[in-house]
Amino acid sequence: MQTNYDFTNAPDRSKTDSIKWDVEPGELPMSLADMDFQTAPEIIAAMKEKINLKAFGYEWPGAAYFNAVADWYDKEHSHRPDPDWMIFTTGVVPAISSIVRRVSHLGDNILVQEPVYNVFYNSIENNGRHVLASDLHFTGENYQIDWQDLEQKLALPLTTLMIFCNPHNPIGKVWTKQEVQKIADLCLKHHVVLLSDEIHGDLIRTGKDYTPAFAVNGVSRENIISLVSPSKTFNVAALHAATVIIPNDNLREIVNRGLNSDELAEPNLLAIPGTIAAYTEGQSWRQALIAQLNDNFTYATNFIAKNLPELKVITGDATYLMWLDVQQVSHNSAELAQFLRQETGLIVSPGNIYRGNGADFLRINLACPLAMVQDGLQRLSDGIKKYQSNKKSSK
Amino acid sequence: MQTNYDFTNAPDRSKTDSIKWDVEPGELPMSLADMDFQTAPEIIAAMKEKINLKAFGYEWPGAAYFNAVADWYDKEHSHRPDPDWMIFTTGVVPAISSIVRRVSHLGDNILVQEPVYNVFYNSIENNGRHVLASDLHFTGENYQIDWQDLEQKLALPLTTLMIFCNPHNPIGKVWTKQEVQKIADLCLKHHVVLLSDEIHGDLIRTGKDYTPAFAVNGVSRENIISLVSPSKTFNVAALHAATVIIPNDNLREIVNRGLNSDELAEPNLLAIPGTIAAYTEGQSWRQALIAQLNDNFTYATNFIAKNLPELKVITGDATYLMWLDVQQVSHNSAELAQFLRQETGLIVSPGNIYRGNGADFLRINLACPLAMVQDGLQRLSDGIKKYQSNKKSSK
Ligand SMILES: Cc1ncc(COP(=O)(O)O)c(C=O)c1O
Ligand SMILES: Cc1ncc(COP(=O)(O)O)c(C=O)c1O
Repeated sequence: MQTNYDFTNAPDRSKTDSIKWDVEPGELPMSLADMDFQTAPEIIAAMKEKINLKAFGYEWPGAAYFNAVADWYDKEHSHRPDPDWMIFTTGVVPAISSIVRRVSHLGDNILVQEPVYNVFYNSIENNGRHVLASDLHFTGENYQIDWQDLEQKLALPLTTLMIFCNPHNPIGKVWTKQEVQKIADLCLKHHVVLLSDEIHGDLIRTGKDYTPAFAVNGVSRENIISLVSPSKTFNVAALHAATVIIPNDNLREIVNRGLNSDELAEPNLLAIPGTIAAYTEGQSWRQALIAQLNDNFTYATNFIAKNLPELKVITGDATYLMWLDVQQVSHNSAELAQFLRQETGLIVSPGNIYRGNGADFLRINLACPLAMVQDGLQRLSDGIKKYQSNKKSSK
Repeated sequence: MQTNYDFTNAPDRSKTDSIKWDVEPGELPMSLADMDFQTAPEIIAAMKEKINLKAFGYEWPGAAYFNAVADWYDKEHSHRPDPDWMIFTTGVVPAISSIVRRVSHLGDNILVQEPVYNVFYNSIENNGRHVLASDLHFTGENYQIDWQDLEQKLALPLTTLMIFCNPHNPIGKVWTKQEVQKIADLCLKHHVVLLSDEIHGDLIRTGKDYTPAFAVNGVSRENIISLVSPSKTFNVAALHAATVIIPNDNLREIVNRGLNSDELAEPNLLAIPGTIAAYTEGQSWRQALIAQLNDNFTYATNFIAKNLPELKVITGDATYLMWLDVQQVSHNSAELAQFLRQETGLIVSPGNIYRGNGADFLRINLACPLAMVQDGLQRLSDGIKKYQSNKKSSK
């Protein structure tokens, strides 16, 4: 077991096909959710071994793949999903889009909790469904579910699917066991299928308990589709590998037909060995990653408290994404983010794309070497100060 | 430039996730269309180099990718598609399914020329469209288009898309420049979009001229979608990389929206470097492959002439798939193929799955080391003889 992993040297992706690094010279992207860390060496080794096979015909995942997923959840999260519940798919978003098409109908409402991962909106709207939001209530410190509003909206006859983000991107919230159970029970009661995106489940930085949706109790479990993937945790978005977990046989068959028709069910040549390596050999790397992320969050939080007291860090327990309340500076995060990019080269995500109260927020990706975090925060500080003095002088 | 490539040692895929090699001990699969050859060493090297980057976030193909495709067609086939006409996609079949959904409507007729690659039927029928066949006319020696039948069926108001296979799997036919042009012109005349699957275009074993559909003359070109990929030629089906070529801006935008909504537009981490390596460094390997395939076809043809004169090889100029007329032995190729597997362990594709007159044929994949071809043909000979004597004794 290797323990001295390298979280200091970012791979140079500036002349690659990376979307994140398709930027002007001098710009610093802290927006798109992939990491500027080398992935686990155990995964690299497994990829190289696969390439040494030299023949790359059609593949299908076998027991080793599904057992690796099950064992990981057992060891890391104390809940073992049955391998028979699982379907391979090429990604979490591809699965969401396919499930939207297969499980709901044209014109249906799909419930989400805003602010939430913006691509959910594409999956819903590109397929001719409607986004129905039950906004999370912002207390000034964190976000809470408005249960009455949620239940009313789940009860609407046109609401047939809910996309849940567990843990929640961009606010970094880890839902409690009770909250997950209650959502599952409400969905069952109102005949709404619960689709739970668990992609950030392995990125809980604090000791906080995490309950995968497939682990709820009772008959509500029969109504749940969970999506898991090593892609966020291990910086392998382009591995194109995710797993759909559906305890109920009939619901699983429905989703399976959709994924097959949509051509999202076949693994590329690295998907199986990459996933198996992540889930069977990635434990210690993940721990080291989380330690590094905590260092980065501590640094950023202290820096902001000291240099940018007008901003407020909304501290989640999960994800490598910092959710930053900027309402004392601007209620127009799109404009603010554009200004920051123009003036300092720092690229962050404007919160408005996540809808809900996102226009008061910026999302900053802290999954990069500490030196890059420091650079980014200095730019943030310079940019915010310039933005404020511009505003003053234009009054 | 390496020239002594290894076409003798088949990679051992028996304990991998290979679909083709998921067989009982002793069985010999010569069915599914991937090759038992090591891929080009130039591709392996490019894959390894990419893995050394160690960070695998979201990617998007750039000019180097599209230029590699264009230059390959220029050098190898004397027609250079404009890189601006191109869209990346995860595979030829995924693109076909997406285009069926985007370009035609529920309940439409989609024209195909039977017998043809069976997965076309899935792409059509899984999406609620109808297969409309204009059967190829079998002369006893080869297949011809029935132009009158074809035009009548293209003229039906419900016929909105034609899926053309150029060259044609399973019959191995390379359509002439005149035939490609005439099909394109008829499609334009009758408002039928022409979707041309060119995946076998780089596997022309003889010197025969090949005309990619995007190379037709006149306004008919504006109505054509061509699909190309290194996957068959370079034994990289699990690379998950293909390119859609559409000269017309509006048609391209329509298809592009479909591929994006369907989540079939993003490359995995090997797709870009693997394709670039194939198309910029794969020339000499492809020549060596074709020489080996010709050796295999010569051996098989002679073997069959000598030992199985009741069978007839329908010699195409393209693909590594041999189309074998078995009507003197059986009109039920499904039963015959099952018998061969049971009695000799040889697995071939029963022609009936390709529809049309396929029930009189077997399809045998000859893309494997010569020793395997020899083994397979011996089993074929033993099996056919046994089948015939069984038939006799049961009369
Ligand atoms: C909540 C959530 N789901 C899904 C994804 C992307 O998943 P994939 O790359 O597997 O499609 C992201 C990426 O940021 C995410 O935050
Ligand atoms: C005509 C034809 N099209 C497409 C494919 C498969 O394409 P892909 O693997 O890129 O989906 C095959 C494979 O045999 C084929 O013969």
